[in-house]
Amino acid sequence: MIVELINTGSELMLGRVLNTHQQWLCRKLADLGYVVTRQVAVPDTGSDILQAVREALGRADLVIATGGLGPTSDDLTRDLVAQLLGKGLREDAAVLAHIRSFFESRKRSMPERTKVQALVPEGATVLHNPHGTAPGLALEVRPNPFRANGQPSWLIMLPGPPRELRPMFTDTVAPLLQRVLPLASGFVCRTLRTTGIGESVVEEKIDGPMRRFVQAGLDLGYCARPGQVDVRLAARGGGAAQQVREAEAVVRELLGPHIYGVEDEDLETAIVHLLTERKLTLALAESCTGGCIANRITNVPGASAVLLAGLVTYSNASKQKFLGVQAETLDQHGAVSKPVAREMAEGARKQAQADYALSVTGIAGPGGGTAGKPVGTVFIGLAGPSGTVVQRQFNPYDRDTFKQVTTQQALELLRRTLLSGSAENLV
Amino acid sequence: MIVELINTGSELMLGRVLNTHQQWLCRKLADLGYVVTRQVAVPDTGSDILQAVREALGRADLVIATGGLGPTSDDLTRDLVAQLLGKGLREDAAVLAHIRSFFESRKRSMPERTKVQALVPEGATVLHNPHGTAPGLALEVRPNPFRANGQPSWLIMLPGPPRELRPMFTDTVAPLLQRVLPLASGFVCRTLRTTGIGESVVEEKIDGPMRRFVQAGLDLGYCARPGQVDVRLAARGGGAAQQVREAEAVVRELLGPHIYGVEDEDLETAIVHLLTERKLTLALAESCTGGCIANRITNVPGASAVLLAGLVTYSNASKQKFLGVQAETLDQHGAVSKPVAREMAEGARKQAQADYALSVTGIAGPGGGTAGKPVGTVFIGLAGPSGTVVQRQFNPYDRDTFKQVTTQQALELLRRTLLSGSAENLV
Repeated sequence: MIVELINTGSELMLGRVLNTHQQWLCRKLADLGYVVTRQVAVPDTGSDILQAVREALGRADLVIATGGLGPTSDDLTRDLVAQLLGKGLREDAAVLAHIRSFFESRKRSMPERTKVQALVPEGATVLHNPHGTAPGLALEVRPNPFRANGQPSWLIMLPGPPRELRPMFTDTVAPLLQRVLPLASGFVCRTLRTTGIGESVVEEKIDGPMRRFVQAGLDLGYCARPGQVDVRLAARGGGAAQQVREAEAVVRELLGPHIYGVEDEDLETAIVHLLTERKLTLALAESCTGGCIANRITNVPGASAVLLAGLVTYSNASKQKFLGVQAETLDQHGAVSKPVAREMAEGARKQAQADYALSVTGIAGPGGGTAGKPVGTVFIGLAGPSGTVVQRQFNPYDRDTFKQVTTQQALELLRRTLLSGSAENLV
Repeated sequence: MIVELINTGSELMLGRVLNTHQQWLCRKLADLGYVVTRQVAVPDTGSDILQAVREALGRADLVIATGGLGPTSDDLTRDLVAQLLGKGLREDAAVLAHIRSFFESRKRSMPERTKVQALVPEGATVLHNPHGTAPGLALEVRPNPFRANGQPSWLIMLPGPPRELRPMFTDTVAPLLQRVLPLASGFVCRTLRTTGIGESVVEEKIDGPMRRFVQAGLDLGYCARPGQVDVRLAARGGGAAQQVREAEAVVRELLGPHIYGVEDEDLETAIVHLLTERKLTLALAESCTGGCIANRITNVPGASAVLLAGLVTYSNASKQKFLGVQAETLDQHGAVSKPVAREMAEGARKQAQADYALSVTGIAGPGGGTAGKPVGTVFIGLAGPSGTVVQRQFNPYDRDTFKQVTTQQALELLRRTLLSGSAENLV
């Protein structure tokens, strides 16, 4: 099954807005077993839209196009598609009534041009839009003049605003697809998320053992982000679920505790869940990460039940004042040192009366490095009920990546300690 | 000038990651006067990449492809492009030395397969990658067998990770483009960044007065993000610079202090600069923003000179312990209240001995709202040498947007106060 996605919008070409439809629709489609094979985005001009739709209909069994169904002069998709397929447009009474009632219920007068949204190409199925005025449209192009063999294609047009597109896809498009384009075989996809291990090491470890699965048709992929590598396993056909399950077992065996979650789960969510389950609390003492750890933890709903306090102590004075770091420790070892990381973690744990406290002190750069402690040097401390450990790490990246990677390492130190009951073997 | 963008990655097709390259690259290219006319994303399979590159070379003067240059088996772009253009691959000694030193400086052994990244198609220009091991590649396809008239095209291949791609584009690709593909006529683009004012209000204020500029060929665009609206002014041709300069003067007159910066400048950078210039220091007391303000301030190089401490006081106990908020204030008014915001700001200022202290307390949701204080309610306090002010805001968005918008409002309160010497007129 060949599936292609077309997004229209001149603002996309200027980089003024982020195209979130691609990810959302591709994910939803993949979860249903329809894997998109090409995404195209073009400006709101007639010739670009026509060319993109014609090309996609020449290749794909299913084409989903977004945008260009609204009432303004740059909303051209409906007209262009009718013209391309040689179909007339008729005013749909039910759609017009919906548009009228949409404005009435909001006590707003209906602009005259809004009526164009009630125009429907002959033979098209109207996809109701409870959240807006422009309906979606679905058309079977049969026979299909753009494919060499005349094989039919489905063309589905969806409104641009995400709050209209998303419920329409879930409520109307997904059931339609399963009815008109049922999948010949099953499809299963699984993503394992790892941290604390580089992309090439992940591949070195699993590539050989996975060869037999890949030869049997498994799709194996990697995706690296700062401090994180995802391993994706996908398969089709009757045995897909078993194949993915077996491959996952092998990967888990090889990567062990580096795997912290599956699918979309992030490390901070895993940690908030672990702490919540165990009724444990956390405090943070951040220097060079500057609140990045606190910010990520507090992105997780429910974080307030586990995070007691986060202290961003950039200055030496604030390390002494809020964390009780000793002046002589700072003098003797410098702020970026193992003893200071230790005192920061222990001080945060004590002051906030938390079960665990993470501390970070390092040199994010661009300035501040020395020969013995170059930019990128960082000490990560963790104080807990069974003592304190400090890791030295070296993350010589740009400032933003430094913060992200260091945050990931700190969260991972905490996660591994919570799982094993001790961090000794990690340091 | 026809410009097309190709992103490769099977994870994009499955919707596992958001494609941020498109927006970033399109924006940067547009600001240089190169407007992208088509974005295509395809899986990491040989035939899809080949087809996409061939088609783009058949249409465009400039093709930028991202991804597929790494060391793993699904990194195919380099090999496929060499094959498509009939070029051999040679090992580049300088690239190999860079890869070796990259691993050495990180005290990691170099995996053997990493060496493939030193292979360069004959005639290609190597684009140095200081932030990773895979270099970018630039090739002039001349004569171009894929275009009807044999007209040449430039093909530029960039590594996938944003922290590698972005500096490479800015430092190497932008100057290369201006040299090898100079624009026929002048192009000037200016972005003014505003905060504290909605998109429709911005449009209402400037649309009329800008009409004469737009009629004379000025391209006027708006881009709204959480807590921020950008106004983009672009013009082509001989008088472009003057036209943009005059239009900017009119916009500045109309929007006044809502404009906090130009181009890519963000609010936190503006604030760190203001504080540094004036030798002033800052402390933060965050509840519902959970470290987001501290994280943004500390993203700015040099923040350590102005930010003394950031206190993320989620729990009532930590508000009392670290900020000296009174138990009776919490009891009487609740943690989300004007008096608590005031005591948090004043407490942070006093404890950290800072010139200014910002505080935030509110309900980020999804839970925790009441009839009188629904989810989205937030109080922002600012304590300074001339007293304390507290703003009440209502930001009923999802958790992430709530944090971003609230952070933007808090930073803006501080910026306006620093500029005017008093916040009284803002509250």
